[in-house]
Amino acid sequence: MDNPVITLTTDFGNKDPFVGIMKGVILNINPCITIVDITHGISAHNIIEAAFVIENSFSFFPRRTIHVVVVDPGVGSTRRAILVATENHYFIGPDNGVFSRIYRISENPIVINITSEHYFLPKRSSTFHGRDVFAPVAGWLSRGIEISNFGEQIQDFVSIDIPNIIRKADNIIEGEVIYIDGFGNLITNISDREIEKMLKINADKKLKIFIKDIEVPLVSYYSECKDDRLHSIINSFGCLEFFIYKGNASSILDIRVGEKVSVMLG
Amino acid sequence: MDNPVITLTTDFGNKDPFVGIMKGVILNINPCITIVDITHGISAHNIIEAAFVIENSFSFFPRRTIHVVVVDPGVGSTRRAILVATENHYFIGPDNGVFSRIYRISENPIVINITSEHYFLPKRSSTFHGRDVFAPVAGWLSRGIEISNFGEQIQDFVSIDIPNIIRKADNIIEGEVIYIDGFGNLITNISDREIEKMLKINADKKLKIFIKDIEVPLVSYYSECKDDRLHSIINSFGCLEFFIYKGNASSILDIRVGEKVSVMLG
Amino acid sequence: MDNPVITLTTDFGNKDPFVGIMKGVILNINPCITIVDITHGISAHNIIEAAFVIENSFSFFPRRTIHVVVVDPGVGSTRRAILVATENHYFIGPDNGVFSRIYRISENPIVINITSEHYFLPKRSSTFHGRDVFAPVAGWLSRGIEISNFGEQIQDFVSIDIPNIIRKADNIIEGEVIYIDGFGNLITNISDREIEKMLKINADKKLKIFIKDIEVPLVSYYSECKDDRLHSIINSFGCLEFFIYKGNASSILDIRVGEKVSVMLG
Repeated sequence: MDNPVITLTTDFGNKDPFVGIMKGVILNINPCITIVDITHGISAHNIIEAAFVIENSFSFFPRRTIHVVVVDPGVGSTRRAILVATENHYFIGPDNGVFSRIYRISENPIVINITSEHYFLPKRSSTFHGRDVFAPVAGWLSRGIEISNFGEQIQDFVSIDIPNIIRKADNIIEGEVIYIDGFGNLITNISDREIEKMLKINADKKLKIFIKDIEVPLVSYYSECKDDRLHSIINSFGCLEFFIYKGNASSILDIRVGEKVSVMLG
Repeated sequence: MDNPVITLTTDFGNKDPFVGIMKGVILNINPCITIVDITHGISAHNIIEAAFVIENSFSFFPRRTIHVVVVDPGVGSTRRAILVATENHYFIGPDNGVFSRIYRISENPIVINITSEHYFLPKRSSTFHGRDVFAPVAGWLSRGIEISNFGEQIQDFVSIDIPNIIRKADNIIEGEVIYIDGFGNLITNISDREIEKMLKINADKKLKIFIKDIEVPLVSYYSECKDDRLHSIINSFGCLEFFIYKGNASSILDIRVGEKVSVMLG
Repeated sequence: MDNPVITLTTDFGNKDPFVGIMKGVILNINPCITIVDITHGISAHNIIEAAFVIENSFSFFPRRTIHVVVVDPGVGSTRRAILVATENHYFIGPDNGVFSRIYRISENPIVINITSEHYFLPKRSSTFHGRDVFAPVAGWLSRGIEISNFGEQIQDFVSIDIPNIIRKADNIIEGEVIYIDGFGNLITNISDREIEKMLKINADKKLKIFIKDIEVPLVSYYSECKDDRLHSIINSFGCLEFFIYKGNASSILDIRVGEKVSVMLG
């Protein structure tokens, strides 16, 4: 591969040397690699959050980028390590559902059960497969090893439930907050496509957006209304998002992931 | 350009994938780039803090480095995106004053209003121009696109007030805390040059430094006095700084940005 | 050197531009370098913690990697700057004991007192030798400058006490918690080798592990027992570690570095 890129997404945080060590392992195998941190700020053990983050990040990277995702509470157990190949990208991580959103949006992803131990570090721990399994496999893949060399293709990979919107009526959908960013903005699972679909039913009617039984105005950009009330916007992931201008909506209003949101036309 | 470097300075923090996504966009355009994080720990929406950080960082990078600064509460509004070219460096970010300190120290900076949308990502959001505008423009600039291709030169770029010292008398200057670092050290806008100037008036007289009406001794290095009292020092930016040895002066003494400081000779 | 790598380990945190500035300085000297952050989350001024982190990280990097460690409360004083050359790696930092664990595990490390000021930045501050001394020396070393050019070899380099285990009897060892990771896991100084040694005495007897007078079961992987009690494991550094599955053992049980731990066979 020319100019291969490996990305890293973990729940390791920024205190410990774990991420740096993974990079050392990769550079030992492929000194010509570019390694990019997507984030190491996934909430500890939060597979659902990691699934959301990698879904919304991977496509901005060059074709054939290798995305390593290590949110892995089952490390050392019998849970499998997998390599997922989609049309344009590779994903490496534990088989715990962290790639569920990738499976949903990819056509015919190939999922390999990584079993070829000669691509692992010689001494494997039971607590840090990021270092011992995922990093070295990513390194070797970046050097052009065929995916079939890492193990057998499987069909029974783990997929986790992703919160879907509920269509309560033609003109009412219910969703929920699925991610809260570092600014405290509340990102929901209601997409711009869903909202456009509703507006097509009757473009004369007005869209009404509710969270915690409060109707929240929809604006086009953050600074459109500079007071300290809650507003909503279609964000850069194409999701309905709630925010307070220059404020932390999550902490001010004590809203967490899972909070219900509804959009109606009427 | 040979070995081009792009730096990133934002208020995005370390929780979200925003910075990683920007890097993906840049690598898609220029796979041979070196990308360096200056910091993503700017306080949310704090343009003044970002202006201070970039002023004190940029000159340590190689000539022709491209510095992308995204502290952008006005994203998606009519605020302009700009490219600033100084003798040796490039700066890309919103036209909200974040480069005010660069204008002040540069001779004849050229400021371009970035309008050539074919250098942006095809689908532009109204909430994340770091990804959709600033990262791709930096990528194309690093590939050698002439700055005039990105838009027209402007003269009415935004400049914000930077806290200046007040010369109360020949032998008294008043300044303020303008930045608090991660150790809790209090960095002021009083420069070593100002202090040297005062000392030239009468080198026999003693320099007295005050914060919160307390006289604070000036030392030459942090560990010179190992008790737990407040001391002052000329720091690595050439600024007067207050610190407690191995302590967090800001939290222990509850001192914030804006606290007045005075230096007198007498 | 082909594909040289420089790693950075500091207590600078993620708020300030200090780390980014060091990278700028290095890239100015060697544009072809790969720079990897090991961590910048060392507790402020904690030399013992940094010594542990670098010991457990360096060997995963390619041969001839240059490891810069800046935890430096004595910056600007008469404490020396040193360059340590072991068989396969280089280390650069203050002579305050931060490399004590490297001395212990290396055969005949060569320690150079860095005094050749023409390899420093021209204007040296007394508060930021990471930028003014350590980064430029690392840059020049990565370009192939011989280590003897940086200064004279010394023998009286500083070594700090590292908490050792106490062998209270053939079948009892006492250790302590020496590092707490970002998940709140409690890492001790009792190694897998020590435990194996004990088991060899009498493999029929059962290992008993105690912390805070509580006996704690030993498991093979984190998710082996999914309740919320404290468990122990041999971790990826080969150390005995205490953890709560998906919980923060340190904060839940209020256990800090220094807490005594004992292992007995009986």
